[in-house]
Amino acid sequence: MTAYHDYKPLTFHDAMPRFADGSETPRAYLERCLETIAKREPVVKAFTAINETGARAAADASAARWKAGKPLSPIDGMPVAIKDLLETRDMPTQMGCAAFKGNFPKRDNAAVWALRQAGAVILAKTVTAELGGSHPGPTTNPFDPARTPGGSSSGSAAAVGARMVPAAIGTQVGGSIIRPAAYCGNFALKPTQGGLNRGERQATSMSTHGPHAGCLEDMWQVAIEIANRAGGDRGSVGLIGPSTLPAAVKPNRLIVLETEGWSIVDDATKAGFDAVLRQLRDAGVTLIRRADHPLVEALEQAIANGRAVCGSVTSWENRWYQRGIVDNDPAGVSERAKATLAKAEAMTPNDYRMALLARETAQHTHATLAPLADAAITLACPGPAPLWSGDIPGQPLAPRPTGDFVFNAPSSMLFAPVVTVPLMSVGGMPVGVQLMGQQHEDARMTGIARWFGQTVKPIVG
Amino acid sequence: MTAYHDYKPLTFHDAMPRFADGSETPRAYLERCLETIAKREPVVKAFTAINETGARAAADASAARWKAGKPLSPIDGMPVAIKDLLETRDMPTQMGCAAFKGNFPKRDNAAVWALRQAGAVILAKTVTAELGGSHPGPTTNPFDPARTPGGSSSGSAAAVGARMVPAAIGTQVGGSIIRPAAYCGNFALKPTQGGLNRGERQATSMSTHGPHAGCLEDMWQVAIEIANRAGGDRGSVGLIGPSTLPAAVKPNRLIVLETEGWSIVDDATKAGFDAVLRQLRDAGVTLIRRADHPLVEALEQAIANGRAVCGSVTSWENRWYQRGIVDNDPAGVSERAKATLAKAEAMTPNDYRMALLARETAQHTHATLAPLADAAITLACPGPAPLWSGDIPGQPLAPRPTGDFVFNAPSSMLFAPVVTVPLMSVGGMPVGVQLMGQQHEDARMTGIARWFGQTVKPIVG
Repeated sequence: MTAYHDYKPLTFHDAMPRFADGSETPRAYLERCLETIAKREPVVKAFTAINETGARAAADASAARWKAGKPLSPIDGMPVAIKDLLETRDMPTQMGCAAFKGNFPKRDNAAVWALRQAGAVILAKTVTAELGGSHPGPTTNPFDPARTPGGSSSGSAAAVGARMVPAAIGTQVGGSIIRPAAYCGNFALKPTQGGLNRGERQATSMSTHGPHAGCLEDMWQVAIEIANRAGGDRGSVGLIGPSTLPAAVKPNRLIVLETEGWSIVDDATKAGFDAVLRQLRDAGVTLIRRADHPLVEALEQAIANGRAVCGSVTSWENRWYQRGIVDNDPAGVSERAKATLAKAEAMTPNDYRMALLARETAQHTHATLAPLADAAITLACPGPAPLWSGDIPGQPLAPRPTGDFVFNAPSSMLFAPVVTVPLMSVGGMPVGVQLMGQQHEDARMTGIARWFGQTVKPIVG
Repeated sequence: MTAYHDYKPLTFHDAMPRFADGSETPRAYLERCLETIAKREPVVKAFTAINETGARAAADASAARWKAGKPLSPIDGMPVAIKDLLETRDMPTQMGCAAFKGNFPKRDNAAVWALRQAGAVILAKTVTAELGGSHPGPTTNPFDPARTPGGSSSGSAAAVGARMVPAAIGTQVGGSIIRPAAYCGNFALKPTQGGLNRGERQATSMSTHGPHAGCLEDMWQVAIEIANRAGGDRGSVGLIGPSTLPAAVKPNRLIVLETEGWSIVDDATKAGFDAVLRQLRDAGVTLIRRADHPLVEALEQAIANGRAVCGSVTSWENRWYQRGIVDNDPAGVSERAKATLAKAEAMTPNDYRMALLARETAQHTHATLAPLADAAITLACPGPAPLWSGDIPGQPLAPRPTGDFVFNAPSSMLFAPVVTVPLMSVGGMPVGVQLMGQQHEDARMTGIARWFGQTVKPIVG
């Protein structure tokens, strides 16, 4: 365990010059990751599988390319971990679900394929909450093992936070990239809906793949290398942007969103966020809140029921798939997932249509705000990662063991790109701040995040 | 084999009164289907699996409901066959692909689930061209075994055409419902994109499930019973319409589309189609062609490259999935499918984006035509089903062994609903005519098709 105030994230982009001049090799970089894994993994428990042999071979092949002056991309040699919802040809895909124990389809998800094409070293699979839902796996928060790393991309966020890999792939349906990233001190991109090709995982309408990383450079590079090879989801243009980290963009006006989460934020987190906002004002940024403009108020109202809308949409879309799993292996699925399935099975097509209408209305409202500000800013989580020591037998199931996605539902339902920035700590634990743009402004949000890094001092609490 | 001029399709809706008054039972109806299957299936080869035991049990359960006066829906007891791309809990799902031999996931696709909820008897799985592509299965045309039944919904179309079942589920990506239906004398609905929940099969952006049936009543009833239970695809409102066959709608104006197919249509088929159009004019319908209005000309141009657009979009979207199958079992996939995969793998994300742009531009052009006419009409296939006796060893692969989808690509790329009506015969073989509407006009197209049935005499040739 590292105290967060001493934390220095693991980065990859700064190793490139050393690979190029021969003073270091991707294999040596990988070996350092493996050393860190040997130290941290027994407590963090981020991984479901580690392919050391394959990774070493891939790192050696990368080293040869760098030596020949012919790397495949700026992430050639980068060790990357993959959330265990995505298929990988060389490791099982068990989705955090007992019913999928031993599942090994031996295929690469489109994004995994693209990463390999770019020379990345696919090192490990990471723990996911069961089927991407809320039933947690064994992963602990790298800054306090008594706390959740967040979910459902638990292992991806924790592996980056523990410096075991410089980057990892997560997925988000409701809040599964941004929240764990915010709890674990990661940078992360939840792309515009459709931004990165989900390959076989396209059965839900508001899910994205996205990178977790120790720095903005690596986060962007992973995303753009995938998009440049595998594009976006079926029917989507996918992520388009510069071939390396976008230039810093100073925002002139930012919308400050409360979301339905504000009422549950603790005072220390509120104070930290206020200190971030003060720095923005001092830098000349105009802040626009719900009281300042009726369109902002309209958006706040349109997303005020975001968790419920996300929950209805996603559980309906998963109901037949999950019913099939439960029917075939009733003991192989958690009671938590079964409770979600029961709610979905109580829905009618018209209930689903009403949830879609709420989502589309919110998207329309959000689009009208485009001329008003450069981005929206809010917390990426309601505070530091909550304590979690498991369900208590005989008691009702804890409602949100991997934390509350109340600050994440808005961007999910809006299909909007979000970059989370590890700008704060509260009680020694990381707390992220998120920047949300209009659809397809992924590069722009990354540029604003870069400006934040140059301008806003982290708030230590 | 039945001569098409003597053909009387098998229907179900007209058996309902007999089920209700006890003069017949769904079990007796099923037994007649099984008798027809015993006679026709050895030549037609429509099925990959038949679950006689399960179907008899389901038919008996249905009979008990009818006896109690409590049928679950107007299709309670209807024997339905399911294209073997869709998962069924009680029969394997082998997708016409050797690599999936024995694949038996024991899950119901959302549409199959909905059919069971409505009381339908899931009798059999039907032959699909390999993976829904163009490599044909063994099915023959029920009106001439030397000819293709069309594809990829080969078995579904042929099973209905051979009176072995009153209805079957097909799927269409480019032309896989409408073309085989037109070759086999079926009525069929290719719904608005997203109209019927595809369940696990949502990895391509322009695929739909749709019913083949012997009459319009059964076609509509199957569609609406699915939609009322499982809704549409993720993110779509899905099919909405009346609970039984929509009322007949007389069109005042119809757009006559040539599509890129017109140049390859034989003279006899052209003459038959002209005879249909003459009847429409005689009934007071105004026909609008490309020479009559610049927006129609604009649409003709926007869809002039429809086959290529559909091919690019779909092969790109399938490339990672199909690469995984080929890598795991190179001998388990046809050379035809491998050639398509090779084309997909030569594409870049920007090639795909350009195909999407062409598709979206065509959709926009089509939408502008809404005020101009009630529907568009054109052939559903370029003529009678072609002869097909298999690839010739040592020769290049025949390009389109299940026929040409040139008349089907437009509605696929436009996401537009189509009803095909068996209005013509040419050389004693069925040839369909299709009605295409604006998105979400599925019920309206069905109503216009009903008016056709009342007004337009079939053209025998």
